Amino acid sequence: MLAECGYSSLDALVDAAVPAAIRDRSDLKLPPAVSEVEATAELRALAAKNRPMTQMIGLGFYDTVTPPVIRRNVLESPAWYTAYTPYQPEISQGRLEALLNFQTMVSSLTGLDIANASLLDESTAVVEAILLMRRASKARSRRVVLDAECLPQTVAVVRTRAEAVGIEVDVRDLAAGLPEEFFGVVVQYPGASGLVRDKDFYSAIGHAAQAAGALYTVAADLLALTLAAPPGEFGADVAVGTTQRFGVPLGYGGPHAGYIAVRSGLERSLPGRLVGVSVDADGNPAYRLALQTREQHIRREKATSNICTAQVLPAVLAAMYAVYHGPDGLRRIAGRVHALAAGLATALREGGVEVVHEGFFDTVLARVPGRAGQVVDAARRAGINLGRVDADHVRVACDEVTTPAVLGSVLAAFGLSPDAESPDAEPGPAGSPWLPASLARTGDYLTHEVFHTHRSETAMLRYLRRLSDQDYALDRGMIPLGSCTMKLNATTEMEPISWPAFAGLHPFAPAEDVAGYRELIEQLAGWLAEVTGYDQVSLQPNAGSQGELAGLLAIRAYHRANGEPQRDVCLIPSSAHGTNAASAVLAGMRVVVVACNSDGDVDLADLKSKVAEHGETLAAIMVTYPSTHGVYETGIGEIARLVHEAGGQVYVDGANFNALLGLARPGEFGGDVSHLNLHKTFCIPHGGGGPGVGPVAVRAHLAPYLPGHPQPLQATHSTDGTDGPVGPIASAPFGSASILPISWAYVRMMSGAGLTRATQVAVLAANYVAARLSPHYPVLYTGRGGLVAHECVLDLRGLTKRTGVTVEDVAKRLVDYGFHAPTMSFPVAGTLMVEPTESEDTAELDRFCDAMIAIRREIEEVAEGRWPLERSPLRNAPHTAQMLVGDWDLPYDRATAVYPADDGRVSPKGKYWPPVRRIEGAYGDRNLVCSCPPVTEYAADTSRSGS
Amino acid sequence: MLAECGYSSLDALVDAAVPAAIRDRSDLKLPPAVSEVEATAELRALAAKNRPMTQMIGLGFYDTVTPPVIRRNVLESPAWYTAYTPYQPEISQGRLEALLNFQTMVSSLTGLDIANASLLDESTAVVEAILLMRRASKARSRRVVLDAECLPQTVAVVRTRAEAVGIEVDVRDLAAGLPEEFFGVVVQYPGASGLVRDKDFYSAIGHAAQAAGALYTVAADLLALTLAAPPGEFGADVAVGTTQRFGVPLGYGGPHAGYIAVRSGLERSLPGRLVGVSVDADGNPAYRLALQTREQHIRREKATSNICTAQVLPAVLAAMYAVYHGPDGLRRIAGRVHALAAGLATALREGGVEVVHEGFFDTVLARVPGRAGQVVDAARRAGINLGRVDADHVRVACDEVTTPAVLGSVLAAFGLSPDAESPDAEPGPAGSPWLPASLARTGDYLTHEVFHTHRSETAMLRYLRRLSDQDYALDRGMIPLGSCTMKLNATTEMEPISWPAFAGLHPFAPAEDVAGYRELIEQLAGWLAEVTGYDQVSLQPNAGSQGELAGLLAIRAYHRANGEPQRDVCLIPSSAHGTNAASAVLAGMRVVVVACNSDGDVDLADLKSKVAEHGETLAAIMVTYPSTHGVYETGIGEIARLVHEAGGQVYVDGANFNALLGLARPGEFGGDVSHLNLHKTFCIPHGGGGPGVGPVAVRAHLAPYLPGHPQPLQATHSTDGTDGPVGPIASAPFGSASILPISWAYVRMMSGAGLTRATQVAVLAANYVAARLSPHYPVLYTGRGGLVAHECVLDLRGLTKRTGVTVEDVAKRLVDYGFHAPTMSFPVAGTLMVEPTESEDTAELDRFCDAMIAIRREIEEVAEGRWPLERSPLRNAPHTAQMLVGDWDLPYDRATAVYPADDGRVSPKGKYWPPVRRIEGAYGDRNLVCSCPPVTEYAADTSRSGS
Repeated sequence: MLAECGYSSLDALVDAAVPAAIRDRSDLKLPPAVSEVEATAELRALAAKNRPMTQMIGLGFYDTVTPPVIRRNVLESPAWYTAYTPYQPEISQGRLEALLNFQTMVSSLTGLDIANASLLDESTAVVEAILLMRRASKARSRRVVLDAECLPQTVAVVRTRAEAVGIEVDVRDLAAGLPEEFFGVVVQYPGASGLVRDKDFYSAIGHAAQAAGALYTVAADLLALTLAAPPGEFGADVAVGTTQRFGVPLGYGGPHAGYIAVRSGLERSLPGRLVGVSVDADGNPAYRLALQTREQHIRREKATSNICTAQVLPAVLAAMYAVYHGPDGLRRIAGRVHALAAGLATALREGGVEVVHEGFFDTVLARVPGRAGQVVDAARRAGINLGRVDADHVRVACDEVTTPAVLGSVLAAFGLSPDAESPDAEPGPAGSPWLPASLARTGDYLTHEVFHTHRSETAMLRYLRRLSDQDYALDRGMIPLGSCTMKLNATTEMEPISWPAFAGLHPFAPAEDVAGYRELIEQLAGWLAEVTGYDQVSLQPNAGSQGELAGLLAIRAYHRANGEPQRDVCLIPSSAHGTNAASAVLAGMRVVVVACNSDGDVDLADLKSKVAEHGETLAAIMVTYPSTHGVYETGIGEIARLVHEAGGQVYVDGANFNALLGLARPGEFGGDVSHLNLHKTFCIPHGGGGPGVGPVAVRAHLAPYLPGHPQPLQATHSTDGTDGPVGPIASAPFGSASILPISWAYVRMMSGAGLTRATQVAVLAANYVAARLSPHYPVLYTGRGGLVAHECVLDLRGLTKRTGVTVEDVAKRLVDYGFHAPTMSFPVAGTLMVEPTESEDTAELDRFCDAMIAIRREIEEVAEGRWPLERSPLRNAPHTAQMLVGDWDLPYDRATAVYPADDGRVSPKGKYWPPVRRIEGAYGDRNLVCSCPPVTEYAADTSRSGS
Repeated sequence: MLAECGYSSLDALVDAAVPAAIRDRSDLKLPPAVSEVEATAELRALAAKNRPMTQMIGLGFYDTVTPPVIRRNVLESPAWYTAYTPYQPEISQGRLEALLNFQTMVSSLTGLDIANASLLDESTAVVEAILLMRRASKARSRRVVLDAECLPQTVAVVRTRAEAVGIEVDVRDLAAGLPEEFFGVVVQYPGASGLVRDKDFYSAIGHAAQAAGALYTVAADLLALTLAAPPGEFGADVAVGTTQRFGVPLGYGGPHAGYIAVRSGLERSLPGRLVGVSVDADGNPAYRLALQTREQHIRREKATSNICTAQVLPAVLAAMYAVYHGPDGLRRIAGRVHALAAGLATALREGGVEVVHEGFFDTVLARVPGRAGQVVDAARRAGINLGRVDADHVRVACDEVTTPAVLGSVLAAFGLSPDAESPDAEPGPAGSPWLPASLARTGDYLTHEVFHTHRSETAMLRYLRRLSDQDYALDRGMIPLGSCTMKLNATTEMEPISWPAFAGLHPFAPAEDVAGYRELIEQLAGWLAEVTGYDQVSLQPNAGSQGELAGLLAIRAYHRANGEPQRDVCLIPSSAHGTNAASAVLAGMRVVVVACNSDGDVDLADLKSKVAEHGETLAAIMVTYPSTHGVYETGIGEIARLVHEAGGQVYVDGANFNALLGLARPGEFGGDVSHLNLHKTFCIPHGGGGPGVGPVAVRAHLAPYLPGHPQPLQATHSTDGTDGPVGPIASAPFGSASILPISWAYVRMMSGAGLTRATQVAVLAANYVAARLSPHYPVLYTGRGGLVAHECVLDLRGLTKRTGVTVEDVAKRLVDYGFHAPTMSFPVAGTLMVEPTESEDTAELDRFCDAMIAIRREIEEVAEGRWPLERSPLRNAPHTAQMLVGDWDLPYDRATAVYPADDGRVSPKGKYWPPVRRIEGAYGDRNLVCSCPPVTEYAADTSRSGS
């Protein structure tokens, strides 16, 4: 490979590629590498320091049973967790169907018309709902009203986010009425203290909102909705929440899938990913992402949200939980939870303890004047975490794993005799005295066939396998996605996330329960600071987009603290990912675009002019390094100097950190702040489109402005905001804590030398692909010595102009050759960006290059007129097995279609068969369908039976 | 389903089907059912009572690292573990390739020409080698000579087995020479005490054996063979051993894959399964089981062995360990192990401790007069189990997980200062002073491409996926195999076997280390006694065939103890599985066949005549109940009475216990002894052809004759036989202990009522299939009320006679419909036996019945001459995707070939594609190839690349 690139050693190649000015040749100060066995042993020792108690704290996080068949065959299956975001829908039909199930589940349970494919967590989902309400509301007010029963972490996150965009937050007891003017109102249902009011109350708020021209959001618990009236029935425009308790482990706070659903008419304002049904080239139904033009990678600063990653893997878990249990099973689980809570309340009251609320679903609020601490402590001695609201109130949240025996211990903690009336585990009669009769859910839900056909473990297993068999993930072959770094997700890194001692912790558990987590988090944060050259790292952001936002909020807070609140201009090069612009807007900044020159580098002249133009209002520049063009720009030092001199801060987007790790540190070559993507460089798998983790790293002067988190939440039920200069930006203090062991294990097993070597190999692989393919496809951008960094952009624009063959044609044809396409038309339309990563061996790199070269020959067949483009294998790609059985009148034969390159590269035995032909996206956007077809349509459908 | 069968309730159906005389309506005395969550918690509590120490006991069991990518994607993957034995090779190519890798690995490492696809464990492998030597030897002696260095458990198992078949066992120090006459000799290499002698010694034994007309077996450690000369180089005819230390967890003794390899010329005497390369209908290479005519299901009492189940899943693990590490990696691991042992020996000697052997691989024997107990105890306090040989000797076995730190603790246990020369972990120079130079292995091994191409985790993951994608297992659909009970293997049952506290225990660990295992085993044995109606159960037999043998040996010993050694006739109905006859022969009995009548039942007249004829020599009758015809015979009581009256014992084969569990107890309706198959009725997955577990259950009078096990083995290194009236029949005291949690969890979650209900549903499912299919295919045998038991035999003989369409044609055509075939031609040639089990839902049962009915219509097309048989989809089945791309001149179209039954039953999205066309078995037997092709053949091969 080195010979192909013209270098004699890795060091020589890297010395040539990486500008000396940014190169850091010192050894990374990381512990020496350990083996897989040793890393596992160390993680077991850390896990042993955690205490997964019986968790009854509530506040949006509940213990749940992940059905083992789903845990093993989704959460622990590479076919699911190594998959990429379904941008190539033809090879993602399995997870798209799973997400459609998710959307259908949310839509049906909330009683609203359309749901998206998940959001990051409940608190950010409320923020997204508020932003949506502001966009959609006719009211001119800047005020949003929050129910005092909203989850405290939600109120805190809303305050953080609202402040930046000038929204006024009015938290109040809604029983006391609404203000005159507001653009939206958010109600928690059931409330944080467990409170459920009667239906008239919830309906009245809807009427009041409508009267004010405002919108109405209900933050609802999906399990409660199996018994209680859905928000769609009492006038909600939007419903949000989490799906965690549908089989997704607590995991010390995440990752979990948040959700959002809206009434018809608001769908084009929805944030995040949306799966829709369209048709393929044969007119067969096929799934793909819908309405992508809403998203930030296209709309940039005008996007509906900066959300990029969704929470696909947790969303699939939650959807499959509903598929497995079906409506009857969910209702039974909910009924049992409510019966237990009701039994507890009755026993407490009979025992002389005051039960505050007459209506609740799963959470009992007890008033024990002056005794709350004592009760909570007694429960802890019995292995149970209760919620200490204040000195006088204790919150007890029941869930799927609660047993009568546990409630016996709870009663004992309240000082009641264990032989008090034993709470009953059986669902009570429909008319529970503790759930307002007006709220009883009537009518069916989840009536779609998928929620009624996979009820045995055998049937569920086969459904999961059938879906995953339709998809292409890293377990089949290379996914050479530029900018997305699809690298090995080692099993040793993945195994610990299933362990109960990491999976079973509540995010608001006392510190002494989570000593292992805290140690792991502290170590990982320290290691990330070391490799980035920054001083402090926060692991709270649970996606790259949130890391960006946290970094920009830190810059904003820094300028304000320095008495320069007017600094609100964020310079962003034209080559930047759209998320940068969207995040800047949400941090309250104005986006000013800086031009790039023909080499793809930042145009320094334009930068100077923009800096001069904005002078005292310059807040920051956001640059990706290496650039989104896949090049080590030599001007980075100069860029940083110019911005710093003008009083601005330098944000180095770490999306491409896979090209820097061990070679250079952004905190040393000019950056003030960076975010990383642990799901790129640090081996957290993409999970089919999430979860991600986006830590933010800062130099010391910005450290005071990292996201905070009001603690201890479980003790205060506080609604009075944040306790730091920048509040929290996620529901849980450490975001998606339960997947951090993955990155911890990666760094622990690699050591500094290993990480450096990996980066060198990634750079080699990219240059090898560039060298092999450049005779066939021009490489658009190169840096020093004609070298690329860790990825290369192949320019097809000339070929397209000459032959009509598009990047999409090449991408889809690659499927026939057994590959996932590279990134299409980013950062430049008409190009393919290839990032091979360090994880692919030479054989796989060659297989890819050979396929690309073979496709180049096919393009020539079109160019020379032997194959009319519309009837060419390029335009007809991908080819399904089903095509083969029909008549064939194409100018190439069937073997060319499905076993191309008869030099042995596409073996019949390993052939991946796409389940559908090329999908027409526009059709689906014109005819928006985002949930499973109703059961009536299935009667005529042929796809319901296995094989 | 009940309506289709004509019954109004499950109880009514079962009352009609099961003879009242055997029915037991009492409730099973089992604990009440617990949930999956509770069962897991109880298993965690049991696991917590085990102490997985650092294991340095040796004696054929060594700790090892299962590469996590292999653990997760083989051991924990339903695609591998729910697969059936590869009798349908077209849909088993993945695991057949994995087994071919296993055979190639064994053959290459032992330096012998041909290896089989695994045996049950090392000790039974030695027995099989001895039986092979007796068959193949020209010597007339009945004596086999065993090296005094043979593993003590091997000597004990050999004594048990030899006694029954009249072989004289001569255990001696081979340095003192060989006796004049013997038919075979077995050498342990390295010896049980670690001893490795020089090459001349091993060669001389070969010469001596040859001179005596005897054969020479070497029981060899495969890891040692990566450094030391292979048995094939010094004249061995046979090599046997275990592959456990190639990545298969200790698991308290099993399951592990034993191996056997022979020199060319002995292949037709090989016991067990053998995978060979043949060709498919297109002439492409394809794998299938070779030389099946050797096996007991065909040869019956003349078979080479009674072995039926192999150890496929552990064999695949071991093979993939070699694929992943390759020869260089294995040599590095072995070199490190030896270097550690050498370092320990040197440090001991320098510290004044006597090291007994000058030559060893991994095990150091230290002489510490009078201090052995003290050293072993000191090591235990440091968390290490050493081997106490006797009062004066300690054995220390190093392995893949040994570290210098562990050796430091070992030295301390010997009373040496920890700052003695620290043993070195790096492989020493080639010429280790502790390994005889004459034995150094020269020349390459594992040169085949597969051992050189999957060296990254990514590449390994893709190889495993590609192989499993070629196979059909329960994760795709129903496997309706009569007599094999392919039922759900629930994830909750499977998860615990991966836990370190079950996986990490040595079979000879002290009792206080295995309290959890002992409790689990005792409970499970008690539950099995309860459900069978017997008094005592042994879980030692690690396959059904071994359970049979143990049961027959108990009968034999009982008669002898009663002074009736002449009782050696075993009556076996003609319908019995061939294994019965083979086992009887190996228990020293003479087989006498009893006829069956036209209903398939035992012919009572013939039975009476045979009983009368054999009178005082009658030892036993073996009957399967329900019969292998799938019918509850009403005569079972009469049969038992007749045999008992004649002084014989009644062996009720429990292969069909899935039809009895909770309805009747063989120990109550006439049986004296039964074996069960935990891999059938009790949910241990078939693993692609093993492991199985075959507990033997007896009434009290036979209890003294259950298999024993000399204990404590680690303390005695005893070679003086067994300590009970019947010795051990497996290497480990509890056989395949590590998979017993699966059956434990099943019973624990089902309770008596659940087990009874499962049996009722299994009977219903079989009768439903019989009812739906009988209009199309005659059901050959029925019992009371025209009902079958848990399976039904479809008689195709009339159709075959009329149309030429065979059961094989139907079986292969079912693949096109997305099914695994039912059992073919057992118990009656020309029939298909269907066992749907209780695990399949109505939708899947209907899918199967619809496919069978559609195939029946296709047969009619042939009958009516529209499709010539040879050109019909029946004869051409299964159809591959590759067929579709070629010319098509068949009288049916491509869609009929691959998407038959266009009523929607075969969906393109879930289509299973067989990787090869129908395989010609005879070609492969004529041209026997049982290992991977040499690397030279790969140059022209097109199948090596994935896609």
